[in-house]
Amino acid sequence: MQTKNSLGPVAEQFAQFDQPLTLSSGQAIEGFKLAYETYGVLRADRRNAVLVCHALNASHHVAGTRLEDPEDIGWWDNMVGPGKPIDTNRFFVVGVNNLGSCFGSTGPTSIHPKTGKPYGNDFPLVTVEDWVEAQALLANRLGIDRFAAVIGGSLGGMQAVEWSIRFPKRVAHALVIASTPRLSAQNIAFNEVARRAILNDPEFHEGAYAEFQAVPRQGLSVARMIGHITYLSDDDMAQKFGRALRNKQGYGYGFDIDFEIESYLRYQGEKFSQYFDANTYLRITKALDYFDPAARADGDLAKALVPAEASFCVISFTTDWRFPPERSREMVSALMRNNAKLVYSEIDAPHGHDAFLMEDPRYHALVRSYFDRVAAEVGCA
Amino acid sequence: MQTKNSLGPVAEQFAQFDQPLTLSSGQAIEGFKLAYETYGVLRADRRNAVLVCHALNASHHVAGTRLEDPEDIGWWDNMVGPGKPIDTNRFFVVGVNNLGSCFGSTGPTSIHPKTGKPYGNDFPLVTVEDWVEAQALLANRLGIDRFAAVIGGSLGGMQAVEWSIRFPKRVAHALVIASTPRLSAQNIAFNEVARRAILNDPEFHEGAYAEFQAVPRQGLSVARMIGHITYLSDDDMAQKFGRALRNKQGYGYGFDIDFEIESYLRYQGEKFSQYFDANTYLRITKALDYFDPAARADGDLAKALVPAEASFCVISFTTDWRFPPERSREMVSALMRNNAKLVYSEIDAPHGHDAFLMEDPRYHALVRSYFDRVAAEVGCA
Repeated sequence: MQTKNSLGPVAEQFAQFDQPLTLSSGQAIEGFKLAYETYGVLRADRRNAVLVCHALNASHHVAGTRLEDPEDIGWWDNMVGPGKPIDTNRFFVVGVNNLGSCFGSTGPTSIHPKTGKPYGNDFPLVTVEDWVEAQALLANRLGIDRFAAVIGGSLGGMQAVEWSIRFPKRVAHALVIASTPRLSAQNIAFNEVARRAILNDPEFHEGAYAEFQAVPRQGLSVARMIGHITYLSDDDMAQKFGRALRNKQGYGYGFDIDFEIESYLRYQGEKFSQYFDANTYLRITKALDYFDPAARADGDLAKALVPAEASFCVISFTTDWRFPPERSREMVSALMRNNAKLVYSEIDAPHGHDAFLMEDPRYHALVRSYFDRVAAEVGCA
Repeated sequence: MQTKNSLGPVAEQFAQFDQPLTLSSGQAIEGFKLAYETYGVLRADRRNAVLVCHALNASHHVAGTRLEDPEDIGWWDNMVGPGKPIDTNRFFVVGVNNLGSCFGSTGPTSIHPKTGKPYGNDFPLVTVEDWVEAQALLANRLGIDRFAAVIGGSLGGMQAVEWSIRFPKRVAHALVIASTPRLSAQNIAFNEVARRAILNDPEFHEGAYAEFQAVPRQGLSVARMIGHITYLSDDDMAQKFGRALRNKQGYGYGFDIDFEIESYLRYQGEKFSQYFDANTYLRITKALDYFDPAARADGDLAKALVPAEASFCVISFTTDWRFPPERSREMVSALMRNNAKLVYSEIDAPHGHDAFLMEDPRYHALVRSYFDRVAAEVGCA
């Protein structure tokens, strides 16, 4: 839904990088393109830039409407815009589509320059670390030496953490929302089931479905349904759907839809399968699974965070059972051990993991006041 | 694992019913067979019978080893046997495979007498109520007018509840373990995703896979993986598997197994797909979704339970997030409103929903002492 004071139409931009990028896997990608959008004005001192990192299924289209499609509203339009918590009258906000995604940056759906065919399953696995490396190249291109803030929710929060470790001088503030320093066994388990559903789909053709003019829709749809269950809280689902029947006459005694929740999930799954790329989904879930900065520091998260110089704002939501508050508190403990500058807030919100995308007044007030402080610091208040 | 004091080899038995059974759906089944096992001796006064109801993937093989296969140990061998909490030296214990299952009772894999082919997708949907009706016919056959206790965990607990409502005079005690008076939207959502995975499998052939000499293994496997995640607690999974890698050298940067938890889930899924029938799985998940005694009483669970005359023992487990203690407490509140005789215990156990199958000392002590009381009441102590 387009919110009040939305930015209006925004044109996407592209940055082409011709140097090879060596990835965490050891593989290299010869050259690549990043799609991005910017909102607001980069001031002459270049100190007012904010990077917004996206989560699993989102893109660089953070706010406003797409120039080509006025119905296509940015995924964080309630957070980013003129007068909004991340105020584009003050800040120069950058949204970037991650490397390996399917919304304009080079990814599995792009044409492999060597074969003239889509990369498909030949596209390498890219990690959170790789994304941050690529984002840093974009920052160079935009002349941004240091971000006033890097912010993200969920997988986006992992990128903010990685920025703080990898480029400590380039991040003044890291905002890590509804995130985790690493996936739990249960998180990985859900991702693996989602991947199985895609890999099992006969239309997947070992990732070469484009060559077969096929799309593994059913697998993608099941994967999305699984994901969706983990994004909502049990209570929220109970309140929104409960046991309401689609057909008020009673049960159907077959395998068509009986309950509203089934109808909702199938709709979400089908919609997703029409716009999201399966090879991309597989890879992004692996990036989630693999992220584990502590593993690079003998399993010690505090040690992993030692290089970070940013001030941190960590936010979690009470009903988020995907990345529950305990996971944010691990992060907070590690930062406290390091004497890092830190704000932590656990927001009592009913919407589960998806709360980070919602317009909760306490949550938005917190982000707003945090960015007021950032604005004062960088002189764009 | 066979436990100490196991019953040893047990022969399965069959009861054939030639009268038609009208089902909740309005459909009728012409005749049917129930597979069952019994342990211990039915005393002359016939007051010491205990019915054990099984959950989603189990069977009538509750305890001991199968006569045909000494490796095949009953699913509740730690609970039922000589000297065990449900002591077969005292009680005559009946395990029955539910109508529509795939372990010997008439179900989708049985031959349809009219077509000479397996029922497959023509097998009707059967509900918890239908199971209880069929179990009552078996009780008649065995000359059991009244059970000293009807007990079950999870879906088995639903059957114990239904027995208490439907046949109030025939149940002295109902033990309802790790169960719920109705599925939540989230529970239904997980079932629906599991069903989608099966229905989408090209080997499903609209349920007629037997005619195609096919088995929708991949769909069943994904369904089981989803189920399995909901049976274990997050903490238990973290302790058992954590982020341990299968290959200690590091990540594989592909879609083969990286983490132990993935390997475990795939193994569970594959094993399940080799012994469980897909049409059965679809139907049993629907029986779970449909069970809702309160819906038959204007949404009032207490009102639904008014006919019950049994004493109740309700047990839940702290880390069970499939049917968490809150769901058992709904049941307990309703029973308290009705002034029912009631014991409720919430056991602090780490194993999630699966705790009801495990040999937790506090849990087993509780069931043991409860059955001591039952034994004293019916004079088999």
